[in-house]
Amino acid sequence: MPTTSSPAARDEAQVREANRRFYQAAEALSLEEMEALWLQNATCRCVHPGWPMVVGWAAVRESWRQIFENTRELHIALQQVNVSIEGGVAWVSCIEHVSSLGDRRMDHAVVCTSNLFVLSDNEWRIVLHHASPVPEPDASTVVH
Amino acid sequence: MPTTSSPAARDEAQVREANRRFYQAAEALSLEEMEALWLQNATCRCVHPGWPMVVGWAAVRESWRQIFENTRELHIALQQVNVSIEGGVAWVSCIEHVSSLGDRRMDHAVVCTSNLFVLSDNEWRIVLHHASPVPEPDASTVVH
Repeated sequence: MPTTSSPAARDEAQVREANRRFYQAAEALSLEEMEALWLQNATCRCVHPGWPMVVGWAAVRESWRQIFENTRELHIALQQVNVSIEGGVAWVSCIEHVSSLGDRRMDHAVVCTSNLFVLSDNEWRIVLHHASPVPEPDASTVVH
Repeated sequence: MPTTSSPAARDEAQVREANRRFYQAAEALSLEEMEALWLQNATCRCVHPGWPMVVGWAAVRESWRQIFENTRELHIALQQVNVSIEGGVAWVSCIEHVSSLGDRRMDHAVVCTSNLFVLSDNEWRIVLHHASPVPEPDASTVVH
């Protein structure tokens, strides 16, 4: 097998894979998969779209438990996935196109997200997920 | 003068100071001060409350120019400022209580924010500002 990729390219591929697995766990509505991806300590933080910031692993875990409990289906298509890496820290920005089916209805939302990963024991663990709804494209405050 | 502070404590103090200067520049409506604080490259990103993500220094700078041009007064009080540092990368979460006076009216908003700083030439430069409105405390989706 060719092994010509640079360390930087390999790091970026690993971060993209960690980011992909994060959304895979969300779509699977799997608390077990989600737990395996986070750096489980007091510093981890999560902002779900329209939520206040949730701080610390216990609260972050509980937020996912509630979301998964109240969601029957979740599909997330990503756009504009940008990766930056500095040492053992990586941050990913992306646009999420989210379709979710709760008890009664299907919702669609466009969300812009910052995900932050820390390299711990050779694994990129997520420590921050900050997602916020994007306004409609024709809203007056949108700047292109 | 006492020099008993640990390197970790010194780093945290420097990051808190960089975060403070960021809000000082915003309150001063000073594009010049704001410019001095950013790592000015293609990777920097900014999500103003309710805005889509702005990517790259030119677009980030333009977003601040527009905000400052359309704002007569801006006051931001911070709460729950948490700092995490890993090598040369630091991330700060905080709650912003924002009061802004535009052409016609005073607006108040509560915003939760993630700020990411990178140590560059011994200065902590901001590379990501992600701010999103916090719902009312009695909203049904809020989880404590």
